[in-house]
Amino acid sequence: MSIQSINVRNQFRGKIKEIIAGPVVSEVDVETPHDIVTSVITTRSVKELELQPGVEVLALVKSTEVSIARI
Amino acid sequence: MSIQSINVRNQFRGKIKEIIAGPVVSEVDVETPHDIVTSVITTRSVKELELQPGVEVLALVKSTEVSIARI
Amino acid sequence: MSIQSINVRNQFRGKIKEIIAGPVVSEVDVETPHDIVTSVITTRSVKELELQPGVEVLALVKSTEVSIARI
Amino acid sequence: MSIQSINVRNQFRGKIKEIIAGPVVSEVDVETPHDIVTSVITTRSVKELELQPGVEVLALVKSTEVSIARI
Amino acid sequence: MSIQSINVRNQFRGKIKEIIAGPVVSEVDVETPHDIVTSVITTRSVKELELQPGVEVLALVKSTEVSIARI
Amino acid sequence: MSIQSINVRNQFRGKIKEIIAGPVVSEVDVETPHDIVTSVITTRSVKELELQPGVEVLALVKSTEVSIARI
Repeated sequence: MSIQSINVRNQFRGKIKEIIAGPVVSEVDVETPHDIVTSVITTRSVKELELQPGVEVLALVKSTEVSIARI
Repeated sequence: MSIQSINVRNQFRGKIKEIIAGPVVSEVDVETPHDIVTSVITTRSVKELELQPGVEVLALVKSTEVSIARI
Repeated sequence: MSIQSINVRNQFRGKIKEIIAGPVVSEVDVETPHDIVTSVITTRSVKELELQPGVEVLALVKSTEVSIARI
Repeated sequence: MSIQSINVRNQFRGKIKEIIAGPVVSEVDVETPHDIVTSVITTRSVKELELQPGVEVLALVKSTEVSIARI
Repeated sequence: MSIQSINVRNQFRGKIKEIIAGPVVSEVDVETPHDIVTSVITTRSVKELELQPGVEVLALVKSTEVSIARI
Repeated sequence: MSIQSINVRNQFRGKIKEIIAGPVVSEVDVETPHDIVTSVITTRSVKELELQPGVEVLALVKSTEVSIARI
């Protein structure tokens, strides 16, 4: 089922640069114009979505998960 | 107490563009070189950190909070 | 931009039953075959997605956000 | 210590169908009346709660963790 | 339904010191033996659990939500 | 880049007691005056921050991630 739009405000488009696969979860590094965005998702999802380096994806972050620091 | 470094891999540097203040939580929109990053934090933190438009901040996201979508 | 598929494993399809709107965040209650699923998202997203009672949606939850309790 | 009630609004009752154990975290798949709900928790918690296939559990999700997508 | 035990490893016992109520979410400040622990939950949950200052509660945090900083 | 302050309200200072390292994520147990606080972060962050038992750290939790239970 295709999704038209999602409430997740922070969407970073990029290409997968590297995947570090573990038995349960995997790290997926996405090269975006911002920088590398790193995600940890289940290894099952990596397989089901057929993710691999070079694939174009969206990295999504819910606003309530974003912290703010003064520098 | 100053923090030297943090495990949060995803760090987006930018300037606050807008704050929508509510009684308990506020939306903080950060203008980064590539896009707006939106955060929802407590209004108490907005006051304590003296956040306001123009202030330079880091928006931080833990890797386990990042989802991946195929497009 | 339409999303083909997403790594979020827990997807609950249903119709919006009620929205409680606040100045920054809103509660969206979705009637699914499982029961009511409750979500808190930004009020801005509620407007942008044109959410209102009766609209069919997917409620999505990342696996790392699900806790397990013994009963 | 027994918990009487919890603020977590989304509670899915079911039986554990499968556990994929890793060195640090494990995936716990819970069969509910309507679908599988997937959780990733520490392997230490799996042992301490003596979770295994067939055990009846509650899968719990905080409302702020639920995203909404239009379909 | 009473919960016997939960996978959430981080449990802080204390008494509610203050509640800041908003239309959708509320801030609940819990005085524990060592510090204040702050939580943001739905205002509906505050009512359903009949939370108010002086009530003894557990503040619970899933391990995947805890960040680590060097100081 | 050093961080002056962060919106994360719940900060627990302590010493690392134990690290269970996995291929993708690691469990970091921090001994605080409250008790042990457990965190799951990427193994890459453990290496980059040079975390090991005895190192003094802050464990940080965003308020929106804290649940409340009646006991």
